[in-house]
Amino acid sequence: MPRTHAPALPARADVEEAARALTGLVARTPVLHSPVIDRLAGARILLKAENLQDGGSYKMRGATLAVGRLAAAGHTGVVAQSTGNHAVAVALAARRHGLAATVVLPDDAAPVKVDRARAAGARVVRAGTTVEERLAVARRIAAADGHPLVDAYDHPDVVAGQGSASLELIEEAERRGTPLDALVVPVGGGGGVAGACLAAAGTPIAVHGVEPVGCDSLARSLAAGRPTPVAPAPSLADGLRPGCVGELPFAVARDAVRDVIRVDDDAIAEAFRLLLLELKVVVEPSGAAGLAGALRLAARDDAGPWERPRTIGVLLTGGNVEADLVARLACAPTHAAVAA
Amino acid sequence: MPRTHAPALPARADVEEAARALTGLVARTPVLHSPVIDRLAGARILLKAENLQDGGSYKMRGATLAVGRLAAAGHTGVVAQSTGNHAVAVALAARRHGLAATVVLPDDAAPVKVDRARAAGARVVRAGTTVEERLAVARRIAAADGHPLVDAYDHPDVVAGQGSASLELIEEAERRGTPLDALVVPVGGGGGVAGACLAAAGTPIAVHGVEPVGCDSLARSLAAGRPTPVAPAPSLADGLRPGCVGELPFAVARDAVRDVIRVDDDAIAEAFRLLLLELKVVVEPSGAAGLAGALRLAARDDAGPWERPRTIGVLLTGGNVEADLVARLACAPTHAAVAA
Repeated sequence: MPRTHAPALPARADVEEAARALTGLVARTPVLHSPVIDRLAGARILLKAENLQDGGSYKMRGATLAVGRLAAAGHTGVVAQSTGNHAVAVALAARRHGLAATVVLPDDAAPVKVDRARAAGARVVRAGTTVEERLAVARRIAAADGHPLVDAYDHPDVVAGQGSASLELIEEAERRGTPLDALVVPVGGGGGVAGACLAAAGTPIAVHGVEPVGCDSLARSLAAGRPTPVAPAPSLADGLRPGCVGELPFAVARDAVRDVIRVDDDAIAEAFRLLLLELKVVVEPSGAAGLAGALRLAARDDAGPWERPRTIGVLLTGGNVEADLVARLACAPTHAAVAA
Repeated sequence: MPRTHAPALPARADVEEAARALTGLVARTPVLHSPVIDRLAGARILLKAENLQDGGSYKMRGATLAVGRLAAAGHTGVVAQSTGNHAVAVALAARRHGLAATVVLPDDAAPVKVDRARAAGARVVRAGTTVEERLAVARRIAAADGHPLVDAYDHPDVVAGQGSASLELIEEAERRGTPLDALVVPVGGGGGVAGACLAAAGTPIAVHGVEPVGCDSLARSLAAGRPTPVAPAPSLADGLRPGCVGELPFAVARDAVRDVIRVDDDAIAEAFRLLLLELKVVVEPSGAAGLAGALRLAARDDAGPWERPRTIGVLLTGGNVEADLVARLACAPTHAAVAA
């Protein structure tokens, strides 16, 4: 795996160190499993339930690592921007370390994420609907206050921290005697999939990204050989709509990720329902996209059966979702098969 | 604790043995926790997520133990009756041991439970709406087929098996340095609460049962000093509506359970919503009743603050629930949801 940007790139050892540093600071979430989902997939699907993580998402990992190191370095405050989960995670991590936090959220952020960031004691600033608008505001605040900006994905501690979730899943699958053949991770800015690539480095595990149709910046970037923005299409998966994959995640993933699976809203809604009614957990659509991608991967007919993954790990990235969306998705069967 | 029916009563050692026998056969479910729920309660609430158990409920424990022992004794089939979860659990346990299973379910059983029993390969017989009607049919089938009836709660292996969930919760709370002061368990036929009493025997943990208003056979039985039937009122909690607590569970619980907390549909619906949106898990109303009871317990003003439990364990007994009920309960102000 050529490391063209080697000096700045985190490696597997950084993920292992992140996992050690986070022990006791974040939850070691369970790996769940459903015979019904396995039957549907025709493969064993192991689901890492980061929706049960503190703060409701795996973003808690990267934020806790990054903010903890900034606190240890003497900083008294941090600034962050995101569509929600990273902001909530930074707010919680800052409170734990006694730092002030300012988080910049879009005008159309899910109210539950705004509420959670405020409940964690952060100052919440609303700014536009695009990542560029939020970043501009966040950089201005960071400069004015003299506090560092904790990027949601273009940050080595964030990538390494997110990677610890994949590492735990890989280890747990081995412990159960069913090592992963593939690992499927939803992609927004790419921090999670980059972390997964690092965690899987040196193993035969194929890492697949999942992007909503029309929000496929990583897929386009891989094709173009450089970070390539998209004008994100509407998607149920509000967390997977950054305009462009981050430079650092792209540099990590470009030669390490197997490919990107695109999923539409119907597939995401079906996965959401399966998780709700079969696995008994609430996963936000951005997280459910991971299972949608795994089901797509398992059904591929472009490989002989001997090449199909027998055990597929999926990162269920978060569970912060509005009650009315749960209600809407719970009942609207997109395919009759889901109810079977 | 006087053991008036001593010869037949299981003890803590039976629960410990059940836990050993079930290792690797049922899931060791996680203990979950939410800062929001803690704040609401003013106490630490540790929730044993048996909704994530194989078969979707803790009934898998007692059924696996009982059916396993019957298989070892040479039986080739089993019969069971229940409102659903015990039937699903017996069907799954029978399939695992290669036994035939016939399960008797009420005419108004939740379709998801009927489907799951059938999917596990059981013959499903529908009979009336009361436990007496189902029992009569089940006994007839058991006699005709020469197969033993695995009672849903009046059975020592079932009580001991269910108790293993409480034992794991008690041990996990100790491991975390926050030992339980109280343990709250929903009560239908009483198998779970009796198992909890056995698991907590010899500890200072107060065991509280929870019954829906109007389905309070255990409360009435404790007052009367003998098993006392009720004509069960309508309740969201379909699993907590047996007409009478079992004789064996009553004999175990009568001197060991601290008291019974009654909860109404509004409280159950509110607990369901908290579990869905804060804990991110789907728990059936019968299981959510446990959290409703714990919140009631934590808010009691009949004790000085020094007597209030600081750490309360709750058994989330199962997660088999219809999609439309999830949708109905997810959104709404409880009155509308319950009335709909």
